[in-house]
Amino acid sequence: MIPIAGLVGILAVAFLTRWVFKKDTGTEEMRFVSDAIKEGAMAYLARQYKTIAIISIIIGVLIGVAISPYTGVAFLAGAGCSALSGYIGMKVSVNANIRTASAARRSLNEALQVAFRGGAVSGIAVVTLSLIGVAGVFFLFWGFVEPTDMTIGLYGYEYDKSITSSLMLLVGYAFGASFAALFAQLGGGIYTKAADVGADLVGKVEAGIPEDSPKNPAVIADLVGDNVGDCAGRGADLFESTAAENIGAMILGAFLYAGTGEVGFVFFPLVARALGVFAGIVGIMIVKLRNEDEEPMKALNRGYYVSCIIAIALFGYAASELLGDNWIYFMGCGIVGIVLSIAIVYITQYYTSGEYRPVREIAKASETGAATNIITGFSVGLETTFLPVICIVAALLGSYELGQMAAPDGAADGLIFQYGLYGTAVATMGMLAPCAFVLAEDTFGPITDNAGGIVEMSEQPEDIRVRTDKLDSVGNTTKALTKGYAMGSAALAAYLLFGAFFDKVAEELYTDDPIKWAAYIDPTVAYSIDIAQPEVFAGAFIGAMLVFLFSSLAIRAVGKAAGDMISEVRRQFKENPNILAGNDKPDYAKCVDISTKGALKAMILPGILPVVVPVVWGLFMFYTYGSVTAYMSVGAMLMVGTIAGVLMALVFNNGGGAWDNAKKYVESKGMKKTPQHAAAVVGDTVGDPFKDTAGPSLHVLVKLLSTITLVFAGVIVLGI
Amino acid sequence: MIPIAGLVGILAVAFLTRWVFKKDTGTEEMRFVSDAIKEGAMAYLARQYKTIAIISIIIGVLIGVAISPYTGVAFLAGAGCSALSGYIGMKVSVNANIRTASAARRSLNEALQVAFRGGAVSGIAVVTLSLIGVAGVFFLFWGFVEPTDMTIGLYGYEYDKSITSSLMLLVGYAFGASFAALFAQLGGGIYTKAADVGADLVGKVEAGIPEDSPKNPAVIADLVGDNVGDCAGRGADLFESTAAENIGAMILGAFLYAGTGEVGFVFFPLVARALGVFAGIVGIMIVKLRNEDEEPMKALNRGYYVSCIIAIALFGYAASELLGDNWIYFMGCGIVGIVLSIAIVYITQYYTSGEYRPVREIAKASETGAATNIITGFSVGLETTFLPVICIVAALLGSYELGQMAAPDGAADGLIFQYGLYGTAVATMGMLAPCAFVLAEDTFGPITDNAGGIVEMSEQPEDIRVRTDKLDSVGNTTKALTKGYAMGSAALAAYLLFGAFFDKVAEELYTDDPIKWAAYIDPTVAYSIDIAQPEVFAGAFIGAMLVFLFSSLAIRAVGKAAGDMISEVRRQFKENPNILAGNDKPDYAKCVDISTKGALKAMILPGILPVVVPVVWGLFMFYTYGSVTAYMSVGAMLMVGTIAGVLMALVFNNGGGAWDNAKKYVESKGMKKTPQHAAAVVGDTVGDPFKDTAGPSLHVLVKLLSTITLVFAGVIVLGI
Repeated sequence: MIPIAGLVGILAVAFLTRWVFKKDTGTEEMRFVSDAIKEGAMAYLARQYKTIAIISIIIGVLIGVAISPYTGVAFLAGAGCSALSGYIGMKVSVNANIRTASAARRSLNEALQVAFRGGAVSGIAVVTLSLIGVAGVFFLFWGFVEPTDMTIGLYGYEYDKSITSSLMLLVGYAFGASFAALFAQLGGGIYTKAADVGADLVGKVEAGIPEDSPKNPAVIADLVGDNVGDCAGRGADLFESTAAENIGAMILGAFLYAGTGEVGFVFFPLVARALGVFAGIVGIMIVKLRNEDEEPMKALNRGYYVSCIIAIALFGYAASELLGDNWIYFMGCGIVGIVLSIAIVYITQYYTSGEYRPVREIAKASETGAATNIITGFSVGLETTFLPVICIVAALLGSYELGQMAAPDGAADGLIFQYGLYGTAVATMGMLAPCAFVLAEDTFGPITDNAGGIVEMSEQPEDIRVRTDKLDSVGNTTKALTKGYAMGSAALAAYLLFGAFFDKVAEELYTDDPIKWAAYIDPTVAYSIDIAQPEVFAGAFIGAMLVFLFSSLAIRAVGKAAGDMISEVRRQFKENPNILAGNDKPDYAKCVDISTKGALKAMILPGILPVVVPVVWGLFMFYTYGSVTAYMSVGAMLMVGTIAGVLMALVFNNGGGAWDNAKKYVESKGMKKTPQHAAAVVGDTVGDPFKDTAGPSLHVLVKLLSTITLVFAGVIVLGI
Repeated sequence: MIPIAGLVGILAVAFLTRWVFKKDTGTEEMRFVSDAIKEGAMAYLARQYKTIAIISIIIGVLIGVAISPYTGVAFLAGAGCSALSGYIGMKVSVNANIRTASAARRSLNEALQVAFRGGAVSGIAVVTLSLIGVAGVFFLFWGFVEPTDMTIGLYGYEYDKSITSSLMLLVGYAFGASFAALFAQLGGGIYTKAADVGADLVGKVEAGIPEDSPKNPAVIADLVGDNVGDCAGRGADLFESTAAENIGAMILGAFLYAGTGEVGFVFFPLVARALGVFAGIVGIMIVKLRNEDEEPMKALNRGYYVSCIIAIALFGYAASELLGDNWIYFMGCGIVGIVLSIAIVYITQYYTSGEYRPVREIAKASETGAATNIITGFSVGLETTFLPVICIVAALLGSYELGQMAAPDGAADGLIFQYGLYGTAVATMGMLAPCAFVLAEDTFGPITDNAGGIVEMSEQPEDIRVRTDKLDSVGNTTKALTKGYAMGSAALAAYLLFGAFFDKVAEELYTDDPIKWAAYIDPTVAYSIDIAQPEVFAGAFIGAMLVFLFSSLAIRAVGKAAGDMISEVRRQFKENPNILAGNDKPDYAKCVDISTKGALKAMILPGILPVVVPVVWGLFMFYTYGSVTAYMSVGAMLMVGTIAGVLMALVFNNGGGAWDNAKKYVESKGMKKTPQHAAAVVGDTVGDPFKDTAGPSLHVLVKLLSTITLVFAGVIVLGI
């Protein structure tokens, strides 16, 4: 099944790429703009990957020495695949944007299809690569590194211990993927928002020229930013989501296998992912406008629901084949996951769409100035944590309960607990099943954004602009929804990764000691992260603080780079009045350079921080208080850090989205160039680094905390 | 010792009040302004207390029925004493402001002394009332309600069980105090900032009139707000800090008493507080300028350090008398607490003073507009969590270690754990020992602020304004420092309250069952809040979310009321041009009314939320999963809610302070009326509800979560 899905995925990617590339590239002027974007994006990506490669190789060697050479190799493979998926997505996206612009000259449907299929390349490539990568490295380790080692488990079933040990090497892959993703998301996020803030504040507010005007020196940097931030960054983010979730779920499956002798638990995550590839492809292929007047969002939703339904059906089939007699409960978990993803999409829409109370409240507060706009917007951002957290908690407890019900009658407490954990993992798989489709929607955003920019900059007629504007606004919605989806899945996946962490710790500490091992399996004693102990509470406190510090660094980086950008744009306008008059081209390259340098320099510290802190804290705890306190304290850091990360990401993503749409709402009332609009623009600008730099980076941070503690679990509980 | 300290405290309050009231009340114009402030403040306080009284009586009766009538009575006593201390503080403050203004006509020293001694009334009254209240209710319960019940404890020592049971009734007092404080802080905070934001945005920014100009319709509301927010609100906040900390520490002491037979552990917290009264009074009395050119801050710091040194000395004496042979380790804990308070003061200064990098960075970011000012300021706010958390964690672990060292050789693990917890309690007592002085500094702030307003509004000569401006700027610094201090002590006190919660749960669940009780005392099994269990993790998640939702409501309330205020001020300016020309008095009362109504209406929901959620969640958990899960889940909600609350309060307080001083820094460079200044004003305005509404309310919220779970511990683990 897995190789077939891999092959189908690759064929689909090839087919869609060919389909997109066959489209025409429009006029000379369009090509001029598009080439500038392409050049800037590729140049940036090359430099970013060089930086990531250097740091990754250092870390990979350290892991190889301190833990295991195989884990080090897996780390580098994970980082490499993550980079590759970012690269593919961006390569297609920078070619799809001009073809979308050109297609918009003919029909809305054609433009929609080009943009969406361009995005789909990225979506399918990410999911397929994650599947091939995880499965490939796993089978390599299982087949060639770890010799088969059949053992009788605690409950009398025979199982192959080499599966567990192969998976323990494989965690390096997940860590590598999150490591590269964090840098990609941070670097891309800083790049895009420095350019965006700079372009907007001087261009739109001070000089009063429209968005994407060719007179704005920062406009190319802004368009490049959409690609390196949203395409390459988000691609890497979701790549590592699927990879880490796959590996974590397989670890939980391996422990169930040890307890029940049923190997299906181990392979179910891979099979579910493989089936998700099919569901995604079908959904993607049917996206098409019924007629030129249909709302593009409707066509996308049709594809999404088809994807979901197929995913559920295939999911049920795989569960019935692999998950034992009580598979129906696990099917329930999968449905819980899919329902959660739909709920989060609706909540995100409520909080970030101009049709509802929150955004209108912000728009109204803009009447009394920028300060009340910010106060109200921030309050809305904080409020948006409420419903998603209730939904996530309900999904977590619900899938845990359902998972426990799947345990056979008379199972030991420890085994029931493992079933419950696996239930949360299955819910996460359910949520991520239509992932290829969602990712296609996400990459669709920057492609349409770019297409609009190309149309605007090459000064096409009004009716073409109307079409690209329509697509662009749909792209903004899908981008917001994807962020909600990415956050929800990160929150749900976190719990299964905690479970994997407990299992890894148990493996490290207890397997050679049958009595302790038996005690460990009793959840009333082990599996415990006891924050009532001061040392553990301290870890929790520092974990939450880490999220705040990280956000601070990410936001400051944007503020700094944007400040440089603003000064540069002001300088160009001042030194050469011909630019604003429209007689001279501004110096785009200089602005691209500022964003590039700002992003590359500023991503290092926040990127290194979450890698260093848990390991150093773990070692400090181990050498001061011993194994158990060390693993508990790091576990608490991980869990409470995750809670803080999810909450802050919700504030940043939804607050930023609400500010953005409050501005659009004010504009839609025809109030451009009023003080109220100026206030709304300030809110939108503040929201930019929130929603496109700090928020998305926090998704990755949350999972990086899980994968790094997984990889270093042995070091934390046994020392170096 | 306790009655003597109570008497001395009352005498000091009476003496200082007389001393302040004997000063003259200046000119007719001054009295006009002062009377308007007095009237507005007292009218608001009366209405606020009426609202709080109604809700308190309802809750008190509920507690009386559901838990115990004595706890209900204690609850009402706590709420009443909290209200009384707020009332005394404000009564003196609204009379001291005019006397400070008048004294400023003669000398800086006299003005400083009037303002500071006015503040001192509040400081000493709060600490004395807390002492008398806690001790009085405790001895009442111990002497008349719970009959003496000598028992042999687990380790063979005889102890009086009625001490523990009296303390368990007394927790109602702490809850009452935090309950009233939350409303006082919320209501006062919303009132003051709605007025401030409204006055500043229309007056200073739009109309270009100076701060505190009599032409501004919102100016009286603004000056009233300083009193009801900073005096009454912060007084109630620190009252409940000292009360809750006292009671929590006594509960921990009672458990040590049961384990060791030494009753000194129970009474030490009361004695330490009594001695703190003396230390505070001495420090307060010596505050005096050496000459007219001395910096007022120097005189205050001299008093503070004298207070600290005396507090340490007396603390050591009390420890040697009451805390057994190894008292020296507890003395160490006390010093840890005092060092922490000094460290936090320095860190707060670094982040909020114009002399250092953070504030200057925000000022510089204002060059490129309001948006970059907000982005940078928010990033600074997030950054300020780093150092305080490191210090708090170090103090916590350090005092826990020191406390454990004080345990006798060969003590059981459970007893050593109790010693450790008590160590963190002693550190908190140390931190709060110079509390009377710190609170005097805090109330000094609004008095000088008001004095400046009176001088400005009654149009006094320039040299008097220079003096009050100097005091006002010192007042801003002391206010910022006090907030840091209040937050630090709340964070440290939280841990001892967690300990008290564990003890209360143990008392409820296990005392009648010797085997379970013995098991409970073993910390490897009990005392456990295991967030690895999904139900417990869910509680933690919701606890953190609660903090975000609460902050959202508090900030939104200010935004809304400020919006109304802005519209009203604009209306008055528009309808009556004579106001700005200086020929007509504006309608001050209308603005006072808007603030009053906005505050009273908006404080209800956020005030009720943290009371309802833990109890409802606890009952839901109890009836779904049983006692142990219920107490763990509520414990996790409490602990992780505290972590989130401390972090968010740091962001709000320090971020707001930094924005405020960035604006002042820009002004000090002579850049009023530039775009850079306008941008800095937006930041300052956004910071207002952060630092004066949400931040201080979160201090109280954190402790309310502790006291409510303490009071309802029995209901949570045994059902209704």
